[in-house]
Amino acid sequence: MDAAEFRRRGKEMVDYVADYLENIEKRQVYPDVEPGYLRSLIPEEAPEEAESYEDVVKDIERVIMPGVTHWHSPYFYAYFPTAHSFPAMLADMLCGAIGCIGFSWAASPACTELETVMLDWLGKMLKLPEDFLAGTEGRGGGVIQGTASEATLIALLAARSKIVKLIQADHPDRSETDIISKLVAYSSDQAHSSVERAGLIGGVRMKKMPTDSKFSVRGAALQKVLEEDRAAGLIPFFFCATLGTTPSCAFDCITELGPICNAEKIWMHIDAAYAGSAFICPEFRPLLNGVEFADSFNFNPHKWLLVNFDCSAMWVKKRSDIIGAFKMEPLYLKHDHQESGNQSHWQIPLGRRFRSLKMWFVFRMYGLKGLQAYIRKHVGLAKEFETLVRADQRFEISADVVLGLVCFRFKGSNELNETLLKRINRARKIHLVPCQLAGKFVLRFAVCARTTESRHVQEAWSHISHLASELLQELVEKSEIPNSL
Amino acid sequence: MDAAEFRRRGKEMVDYVADYLENIEKRQVYPDVEPGYLRSLIPEEAPEEAESYEDVVKDIERVIMPGVTHWHSPYFYAYFPTAHSFPAMLADMLCGAIGCIGFSWAASPACTELETVMLDWLGKMLKLPEDFLAGTEGRGGGVIQGTASEATLIALLAARSKIVKLIQADHPDRSETDIISKLVAYSSDQAHSSVERAGLIGGVRMKKMPTDSKFSVRGAALQKVLEEDRAAGLIPFFFCATLGTTPSCAFDCITELGPICNAEKIWMHIDAAYAGSAFICPEFRPLLNGVEFADSFNFNPHKWLLVNFDCSAMWVKKRSDIIGAFKMEPLYLKHDHQESGNQSHWQIPLGRRFRSLKMWFVFRMYGLKGLQAYIRKHVGLAKEFETLVRADQRFEISADVVLGLVCFRFKGSNELNETLLKRINRARKIHLVPCQLAGKFVLRFAVCARTTESRHVQEAWSHISHLASELLQELVEKSEIPNSL
Repeated sequence: MDAAEFRRRGKEMVDYVADYLENIEKRQVYPDVEPGYLRSLIPEEAPEEAESYEDVVKDIERVIMPGVTHWHSPYFYAYFPTAHSFPAMLADMLCGAIGCIGFSWAASPACTELETVMLDWLGKMLKLPEDFLAGTEGRGGGVIQGTASEATLIALLAARSKIVKLIQADHPDRSETDIISKLVAYSSDQAHSSVERAGLIGGVRMKKMPTDSKFSVRGAALQKVLEEDRAAGLIPFFFCATLGTTPSCAFDCITELGPICNAEKIWMHIDAAYAGSAFICPEFRPLLNGVEFADSFNFNPHKWLLVNFDCSAMWVKKRSDIIGAFKMEPLYLKHDHQESGNQSHWQIPLGRRFRSLKMWFVFRMYGLKGLQAYIRKHVGLAKEFETLVRADQRFEISADVVLGLVCFRFKGSNELNETLLKRINRARKIHLVPCQLAGKFVLRFAVCARTTESRHVQEAWSHISHLASELLQELVEKSEIPNSL
Repeated sequence: MDAAEFRRRGKEMVDYVADYLENIEKRQVYPDVEPGYLRSLIPEEAPEEAESYEDVVKDIERVIMPGVTHWHSPYFYAYFPTAHSFPAMLADMLCGAIGCIGFSWAASPACTELETVMLDWLGKMLKLPEDFLAGTEGRGGGVIQGTASEATLIALLAARSKIVKLIQADHPDRSETDIISKLVAYSSDQAHSSVERAGLIGGVRMKKMPTDSKFSVRGAALQKVLEEDRAAGLIPFFFCATLGTTPSCAFDCITELGPICNAEKIWMHIDAAYAGSAFICPEFRPLLNGVEFADSFNFNPHKWLLVNFDCSAMWVKKRSDIIGAFKMEPLYLKHDHQESGNQSHWQIPLGRRFRSLKMWFVFRMYGLKGLQAYIRKHVGLAKEFETLVRADQRFEISADVVLGLVCFRFKGSNELNETLLKRINRARKIHLVPCQLAGKFVLRFAVCARTTESRHVQEAWSHISHLASELLQELVEKSEIPNSL
C-alpha cells in the first residue's frame, strides 16, 4: 500500500469509524460469542501472498465485531470508563505517522518536551502542589505511564531503592537482600489487584489495611499496624493510598495518612486511577486534599478525561528518586544533550510513543471548561441513577455515590443479587459487573460512555427494575421469596 | 467535535499524514532545537475555553515538527528501525475507535482471541517449535507485550517464581527472601541495558557473561561461571540470551547454551528484539536454531516487521509458568467464561489495547512473501553499504554484517571516530549513533526506514566519505594525522 492508496483507504476508515460510533447504540453491547469463536473464522496461517484491502476490511464485520464488547456504547456500565474522543483519535493518527520512539531526548525532542509540559498543564488543572511540577527549575514533574499498574510498581520500586540506600548509609554492612526481606508495604483492602501484584513483583510484603464503614483507610489503622510491624523488626517503607477504589469509589483518608507517612519516612503513593480526572473541578478538588504529603501521585486521563488509552499520568516530587532507581545509559543512547531528562528512566519499557499529542489535542479542543462539564455530566447521570434506585424500596445503595459510580443491590441474599446480575448481562441490553463490599455481592453501575445521556440511564434502570420484578415474581411463585422483601 | 466534524478533520489528517510521509526526505532528519525549545512556544497552562481545530493543527508545523527526529526518513540510520506501514496505521485507527481495554476475555473476546491466533500465525512464520504455539490444546502460546524490556522482565519474574516454588517443594522451611538472595541470572556483556534493569527490578544478581571475538556468549563461558557460582552457594536460575545484540547484531550461541540451561534447570529466555523479524526468511532461520531449548522467546515486530510500535511478541512453552507468577482475580474481573485465558496475566499492565489488529492487517496485506522481500531488501542495502566501506582503505568493518546493521570505523583512534560521528550528526544530512565494541568507538549504520533505497545508501556513504576526507585533511594540515593512516 502506497501513500496514494492510504489516502483513499484512510478516508474510508475515517468514515467507518464515524459510522461505528454514530450507530454504536444499535449494536448489542456485549457479544454472544463463546470462547474460541474466532479461530475457526480465519485461516490457520498467514497468507503467502498479499491479500486485497477489500478482503481485510470486510472481515472486520465478519470476524471482529461479533466478538467486541462495545465499551463506548451508552449501554455499557461495566468496570470504569475508558476515555474516548475524536480529538484524541486525530492525535493518535499523527502519533502513528511520526512513529518516533522517544527513549531519549535526542530520539525525538518534541516527544520528550511536550510530555513534560503537558504533565505540567494537567498538574495545574488539578491544582497539584508546585513540588510536583517540572517547570524549568523544578525537582519534580510528570510522566505518562501506560497504566496505573505500572505507576504503582514504579513508585514501589523507587521507594524500595530509596529505603535501601537510606539504611545502608547508616549501616553499610547490611546487604540489600537482608533489608528487602524486612520491608513491608501497605495498601487498602479495597485497593486494586495491581497493588498486590506490585508487591509480588518487587519481592516485598504487602499488607492490606482494614477500612472503615466508608471503605476508607484511616490514620489510626495505619498507626496501629506500623507499631506492630516495627516491634516485629519489620521496615515499613511504602503506602499506596487509593482515591476512588475500584469496587466502590471510596477514598482513603490521606489527610490523616499523609502526615503519618511523612513522619515515619514511608513513601506515600496515591493511586487515583479513575477519580483523578474529577479533581479538575473545584467542587471535587477537596477529595485530593492531602496530596501535599505524597511522594508520588497517579491517575488515568485514559479513564475519564477523554484521552484514549493508554495515558496514565504520574507525578513525583523528586525526579531523582525515580531516576536513581532505574537509570541505565549505554553508549548507543548517549547524545550531545545528555543532561536533558527523558521519561524512559521513569518507567519499565524503554521505548515510548508520542502520547502527549493526545493530551495536547484534547486539552485544547475541550478547554478546561469543556472537560469540567464532561465530568459534571457523568456525575449528574450517576446521581440520577442513584435517585432511581433509592426510590425503589426493594433496592439499597451500598456505598456513597461520590462520582460516576453507583453501587447498589437488592435487599436480599447474595445469591439473589448474583442471579439478577446474570439475568441483566444475559439479556444483553446493558452490561454491568459486580463487586464485593463487606461480604455482600453488589452491582456496580458506572457511567462510562461519552454518549451516555439521561434517557439511557432511565432506560437502564427501567430494564433492571423490570428484570428484578420478573425475578421476584418467579420467587413468589416458587415461594422462595426472602423474608426481608 | 462530533462525528460529522471528525469525518472532515479525519480525512484532512489522512492527507496530512500521507503528505508528511511522501515528502519526509525533504525534512532535515535530525532537528536543530536545543533542550527546552518547546516550552516557550506554547502557553503555560491549558486553555479555559475550547480552541478551534485550525489553531491546533497549525501548531503541528510550528511547535512539533521542528523538534521531531524523523525516524522514517531514508536518511535515518540510528539505533534500530521502528516499524511503520500504512496497513498498520489503518488498523490503529480501528483499534482507537473500538477502544476496548482487553484485560479479560469478557472485556472484549475478539481482542483476546485475535491476539492468540496472530501469535500462532507469527510463530508459524518463524517456524517456532510446536510447544510455543497455543493452538486449541497447546500449553504454550504468545502474547503481545509493549516492549522487549517488559518481556525480559516478565520472563525473569516467572523464572524467579518458578525456582522459588521448586526449591520450597524440597525445602519447605526456606523462605522466599532467603532463596531470592541466592539467585543469580546471566546475560551477555553485549545485552541491552533493559536486561540489567530487569535484574535490578527483580531484586536478583545479574552477571554479564564475557563474549568471544564475534561478541557471542559461548557454552564454555557459561559452564565455567555456573560451576563457580554453584560452588559459592549461589542458585543460577535465568539466562537471557540475545540474538542480534544492540551494539553489533551479534548472536549468542544458543545451540551450546540451551542444553546447559536445560540440564541445569535454568530458564532460558531469548531476546531477539531486532533480529527476530528476519527469521521468517528460510535463509536466516538457522540463526534461531536452539530456540527449542528456550523457555521463552521474544522479538519486536514493531522493529522490523512493519507493525507500528508497540507490538513486542513473546512466546512461552508453558503458559502456566507465567500465569502462576502474576495471576490476580478480583470479583470485578470475574465473568462466565473465567476459564478462557487472557493475556493480562502475562504482563505488567492490566489494561491492553487491541494491538493484534495491526498484525492482522499487516500480515494479510503484505503476505509472508511481501514481508520476506522487505527483510531481504534491508539486508541487501546493509551489504551494499558494507561493500562501500570495505572498498575504502581508511575504514574497517567492526563486526560481521549479518542483517541490516553495519558497524564500521576509521582505522584510527577513538577520538578520531568520535569527531567523525559528531561531524556527521552536526551536518544533519543523515543520523547515526555509535557503540562500543571491545573498547573501540564504533559507528553504527542501521538500515531503518521503509523507504530507504540504494540511492540513499550511496548518498549516505559518499557524505560520510566526504566528511572523513575533510577531517583527515585538517589533521594533515595540523600534522596530527595518526600513524596508522
